Amino acid sequence: MSRTEDTAWFEPLNAVLHEWAKTAAARDKAGGTAFHERRLLRESGLLGLSLPVEFGGQGAAWSTTLDVVRRMAQVDSSLAHLFAFHHLQLATIRLFGSDAQNHRWLGETVAQGWFWGNALNPLDKSTRALPDANGYLFDGRKSFCSGARDSDQLLASAFDDDGRLLIGVTPTNRAGITVLDDWDNMGQRQTDSGTVVFERVPIATDELLLQPGPLSSPFATLRPLLAQSILSHIYLGIGEGALQAARDATLAQTRPWIASSAARPADDPYVLAHFGDFWIALEGARLLVERAMQAFDRAWSRGLALTEDERGEVAVAVAASKVAAARAGLEVAHRMFEVTGARSTTAALRLDRFWRNVRVHTLHDPIDYKVRELGEWALNSRVPKPSFYS
Amino acid sequence: MSRTEDTAWFEPLNAVLHEWAKTAAARDKAGGTAFHERRLLRESGLLGLSLPVEFGGQGAAWSTTLDVVRRMAQVDSSLAHLFAFHHLQLATIRLFGSDAQNHRWLGETVAQGWFWGNALNPLDKSTRALPDANGYLFDGRKSFCSGARDSDQLLASAFDDDGRLLIGVTPTNRAGITVLDDWDNMGQRQTDSGTVVFERVPIATDELLLQPGPLSSPFATLRPLLAQSILSHIYLGIGEGALQAARDATLAQTRPWIASSAARPADDPYVLAHFGDFWIALEGARLLVERAMQAFDRAWSRGLALTEDERGEVAVAVAASKVAAARAGLEVAHRMFEVTGARSTTAALRLDRFWRNVRVHTLHDPIDYKVRELGEWALNSRVPKPSFYS
Amino acid sequence: MSRTEDTAWFEPLNAVLHEWAKTAAARDKAGGTAFHERRLLRESGLLGLSLPVEFGGQGAAWSTTLDVVRRMAQVDSSLAHLFAFHHLQLATIRLFGSDAQNHRWLGETVAQGWFWGNALNPLDKSTRALPDANGYLFDGRKSFCSGARDSDQLLASAFDDDGRLLIGVTPTNRAGITVLDDWDNMGQRQTDSGTVVFERVPIATDELLLQPGPLSSPFATLRPLLAQSILSHIYLGIGEGALQAARDATLAQTRPWIASSAARPADDPYVLAHFGDFWIALEGARLLVERAMQAFDRAWSRGLALTEDERGEVAVAVAASKVAAARAGLEVAHRMFEVTGARSTTAALRLDRFWRNVRVHTLHDPIDYKVRELGEWALNSRVPKPSFYS
Amino acid sequence: MSRTEDTAWFEPLNAVLHEWAKTAAARDKAGGTAFHERRLLRESGLLGLSLPVEFGGQGAAWSTTLDVVRRMAQVDSSLAHLFAFHHLQLATIRLFGSDAQNHRWLGETVAQGWFWGNALNPLDKSTRALPDANGYLFDGRKSFCSGARDSDQLLASAFDDDGRLLIGVTPTNRAGITVLDDWDNMGQRQTDSGTVVFERVPIATDELLLQPGPLSSPFATLRPLLAQSILSHIYLGIGEGALQAARDATLAQTRPWIASSAARPADDPYVLAHFGDFWIALEGARLLVERAMQAFDRAWSRGLALTEDERGEVAVAVAASKVAAARAGLEVAHRMFEVTGARSTTAALRLDRFWRNVRVHTLHDPIDYKVRELGEWALNSRVPKPSFYS
Repeated sequence: MSRTEDTAWFEPLNAVLHEWAKTAAARDKAGGTAFHERRLLRESGLLGLSLPVEFGGQGAAWSTTLDVVRRMAQVDSSLAHLFAFHHLQLATIRLFGSDAQNHRWLGETVAQGWFWGNALNPLDKSTRALPDANGYLFDGRKSFCSGARDSDQLLASAFDDDGRLLIGVTPTNRAGITVLDDWDNMGQRQTDSGTVVFERVPIATDELLLQPGPLSSPFATLRPLLAQSILSHIYLGIGEGALQAARDATLAQTRPWIASSAARPADDPYVLAHFGDFWIALEGARLLVERAMQAFDRAWSRGLALTEDERGEVAVAVAASKVAAARAGLEVAHRMFEVTGARSTTAALRLDRFWRNVRVHTLHDPIDYKVRELGEWALNSRVPKPSFYS
Repeated sequence: MSRTEDTAWFEPLNAVLHEWAKTAAARDKAGGTAFHERRLLRESGLLGLSLPVEFGGQGAAWSTTLDVVRRMAQVDSSLAHLFAFHHLQLATIRLFGSDAQNHRWLGETVAQGWFWGNALNPLDKSTRALPDANGYLFDGRKSFCSGARDSDQLLASAFDDDGRLLIGVTPTNRAGITVLDDWDNMGQRQTDSGTVVFERVPIATDELLLQPGPLSSPFATLRPLLAQSILSHIYLGIGEGALQAARDATLAQTRPWIASSAARPADDPYVLAHFGDFWIALEGARLLVERAMQAFDRAWSRGLALTEDERGEVAVAVAASKVAAARAGLEVAHRMFEVTGARSTTAALRLDRFWRNVRVHTLHDPIDYKVRELGEWALNSRVPKPSFYS
Repeated sequence: MSRTEDTAWFEPLNAVLHEWAKTAAARDKAGGTAFHERRLLRESGLLGLSLPVEFGGQGAAWSTTLDVVRRMAQVDSSLAHLFAFHHLQLATIRLFGSDAQNHRWLGETVAQGWFWGNALNPLDKSTRALPDANGYLFDGRKSFCSGARDSDQLLASAFDDDGRLLIGVTPTNRAGITVLDDWDNMGQRQTDSGTVVFERVPIATDELLLQPGPLSSPFATLRPLLAQSILSHIYLGIGEGALQAARDATLAQTRPWIASSAARPADDPYVLAHFGDFWIALEGARLLVERAMQAFDRAWSRGLALTEDERGEVAVAVAASKVAAARAGLEVAHRMFEVTGARSTTAALRLDRFWRNVRVHTLHDPIDYKVRELGEWALNSRVPKPSFYS
Repeated sequence: MSRTEDTAWFEPLNAVLHEWAKTAAARDKAGGTAFHERRLLRESGLLGLSLPVEFGGQGAAWSTTLDVVRRMAQVDSSLAHLFAFHHLQLATIRLFGSDAQNHRWLGETVAQGWFWGNALNPLDKSTRALPDANGYLFDGRKSFCSGARDSDQLLASAFDDDGRLLIGVTPTNRAGITVLDDWDNMGQRQTDSGTVVFERVPIATDELLLQPGPLSSPFATLRPLLAQSILSHIYLGIGEGALQAARDATLAQTRPWIASSAARPADDPYVLAHFGDFWIALEGARLLVERAMQAFDRAWSRGLALTEDERGEVAVAVAASKVAAARAGLEVAHRMFEVTGARSTTAALRLDRFWRNVRVHTLHDPIDYKVRELGEWALNSRVPKPSFYS
């Protein structure tokens, strides 16, 4: 998968990754907001990667944008997540918003160099949308708001009195919005996925994504498939990063286990068996992820012509890639220590971050229910029913 | 994977499969030689599928030929094996033989409708090549000679006094050759993989594949990769056939388990979980197999220009697909009963044949050592060393 | 586990096993009723093993009786099943029947050398109990009647018009009973688990197990736990038999795989890894089975004083042992070929019978729901609710 | 397993555990030396648990002592390790030392309330024993010295010029010994397993364990089996602690996943399946561990009469329990999050400590080679060859 190598963003991406890598372990320890690394991202131009050329973006396909996410996740899966969710917010405007809204926000994103944060969590019902003269007042606390800190714009959700989900856009610095610095988690420590407090924050009608609105067509329901695909790429990237770290650590060792017949650890039959298993798991996931993105790109290009059945088949491909990537990432991050051995557990290396990151992130929504969706397909030929998680 | 659907051989293939399916269970019980089904294959024209158009063949790519093998294996993995090994013998001539030999045997294959059998087993050292005026006399017993019975031509191997492997071509009915009807195995019961006895069978010099000879170039070492790829396609096809059989059996059931909350077995959460797992395993293997064949087709088209490194990367892709297909096929064939339940074990259905077939065939060469090869690649960046199994 | 070695039945058991072993593979092929081997069992005296001494039996504990079942299953799991189900019928009388019925049938079992068969299948609702002057007429077809052929007495079930399950005792040769020779299955081929046809067969009131009746007390609900324990012992015995066969086959091989650094297959690192895994799986299951039987013996000795909670804890132990034994048996029978290699798949050895037997038998009731029961215990502290399968 | 409940140390143990539990998560974050918790241990009297009554100890069997280790590990596996290794040092004196040495050091341990630390690492060859007038000078750096900090006495090893391993006893505060505070690891963070620097530290001849000396008899080779058993109990305890934490977290949740048919998470079919699997894994490991300790106690009581074969069978039981406990602990600690969900990953709970602890500790010596030992037993009937790891 070398699709980005011949592109204009290959060099800026590598430069960013090079800087991130230097401090990835230290920042995993520190947690908090990665201001410096976020600024590198702003300066790289990559925040416009998925945006159409007409809005000043680079017009990259989603497969390409997410391939960049995967590469980032090899090095730092928190920052990969922030980058990906920035693009997910922009995709949400494209899928749920009007032409006018697209022109307004996508254009400004490039012009102003905006970094978008997420305050859209459809499972969190504690934020209400109170009717107001010019629209609504959003009021309540919202959890898991990845990337809200140090962001310029937010996509925020709230429920009105009828239980309808409303999604609005607001500058992060609008009065009434407080972004708490309260994210302290065992993994994905620099995703800033903390709480945003909304205190009667006015959201005007033209700031709501009502035309065509959430999940309003098969095309609009590509949004959850993009979200799920982002996860797959992050899981896969973490697995690949873990494999690389395991490889480095193993090759650096000189003394095989006393009972081994091998001259060096890298020739030990059991060490080789583990690496073989890692490879197969990651390679299988990689192909499933690629295939799903090819289908996704095709579906995206179909726009409103996309049918339910076509969307359904993409959903199946995305689900398969998500499960395989989660399992592969978990497997490598969990088992890598069986090849790297006791000395690799020193806190200096923080090699456990691969496991902590993928362990946390694979809980976004239960793998068990994703497997069930695939069972429905394999057995009953039923495609996944669109929702914010399918 | 519907690559054969738009082709001239789609209909004849389906017609053959339709006939085979009727008796697959009964023939699994009976064992022995499937004369009738082999005749259907001869009559279908598919025995020329991989042969170049210049020799009267259909000029199909190897990816296409093996996709046909996979489809056959869904229905009858013994006959899929015979079909595949027929093409493997022809490929061996193309890789190890001279231009003249190619013209002689490939052309005649189409003209005479020959079905080729296998008497090439490089691990079986009991057949000797004794020097003779016009070449050699092959003498000894050879085991695992798939497809030798009811064949027209054989590819046979023997070792000369210096331990050199010689590969020769002979009509099956040449004096001194006895094809025993002694194959009785727990699986792959109609592959006729029994013994061929050679009693001082004369093999003329121009019947030996000496120019350029076995494994004589990176290109020539594609032979074992083709053999391994055949295995992958058979394993995958068996898994797919098992999934289809499991699906049919599950959907035919009406009564869920007494402790299940589902209205019918096909809605049971655990049944769905199994099918989800089956799907992921097979889908991952399917993509690895596809990818490996794309690489193989490219390598084949490079001919003698193929480098060792290029060959090595194909070998890695083939090895990954082989392991994944073996595991997926074994998993589905082993676990399918957990969804189909006790009544599906009646001998009338012979659903155990999927397991017996894939269990036997995945022992062709040890999966453990294939995983090790992948470990060498993932850890030490070493590509598999060419041999008759790598 | 050498508990039988110092007992009176050790020698007769070994003699029986020695004879059974000679023909186990051949009889697996033939299927049908093992008249000769059943006669050996009758002559051995082992049919009285679990019966109290007061009725002329040998008064063995259930742990001992089932340990004999396990040993039998190492050699022939069909006959082990018939032996075990004979004792299960007798246990059913002891648990569900009156004192008078116990005296009547247990005493005669020893005196007459009766072999009991099973026509009790609480999931099969097709046999009705029609009221009659002296009791009921049993009418209908019953499937999965293990051991009915060549039996002397049957335990049979039917449902009355109110849907109540009635269990009755009848000589197998009573008018109206036809035992069909229609069992032909992929595994457990000599359990004679075919159909019994009841055509208005009179079952007198005193032949019904009404006092205290089915599952009438915590003590009476030990019946399903005994049935489940029988399964555990058979699964474990099959696994142990498979391991022994794998060991014999591996030690008999002389040539390691060409890529192996070992001097002989039995020193190959991957072969050793498989055997290590087999051992751990079986040893863990063995201890769980032993522990469950210790609990079962204690519960049995408590009789009607047994409480629901006490019974519940036995049920948890039995469930854990059942799942572990099923998984271990399946694992060894499935994977054993990865150490024994291609040549061990010859039909002459019929080594696939271990897999076919354990595969079929582990479908008796779904493992998934047994795992769920253990989850209810581990998470919610709920013991399994007594039923015919828990 | 409630063996400690009726004993004099049950209450002191519970009191210690109660205190440890309050700060276990916080101390996992802090790392460093747990002075307060170590003092609780000193004051509890449990440091004399395994010591013979004649030396003022409590005379507990090893099975009992290690059962206490397991219970400690449920709460805090670092402290469990320190407690266990204290007793391992004392066992080492009993196995390798003279009667006089036993009297001297075991008696003082109780009298002075000594806490022993470990500086015995037979793989670390960087400490030399230089001949000296009164014995030797130990010189060099030793890594992985668990419990050296805040210890009173050390067991230390060094190699003389002939490569012979010498084991000596010294007060920790002897001149020339510097215990570095340099342990900072991803798991087992309070085991103080850092570096001890020996600068020409005099060890007198009567401080060396020469009579009978290391691994000098089958009895003396029980030392590595005790060390391995300690590991098993810690792994098992971690798994049990993780299960308990997973249970608490799951029961505290009120909202099932949106696609679940269950009313609450604790009734979800997949959640129950995970808990069922956790239970089976831990229960199987628990029995293997118990069985191994019964064998160990018996072997210990045999003293110098213990034969190689008897020792070998204990070694097999210990190896099986070690592998099963490692796998069970890893499985539960890795998978627990699939039932507890995303919110349980907050750093406040530090639930990842179970995984980090068991992941680190299971690397003590490779599981792969322990499985291999079991394969040697299962296949070749070879018992493990005594070494410091077998």
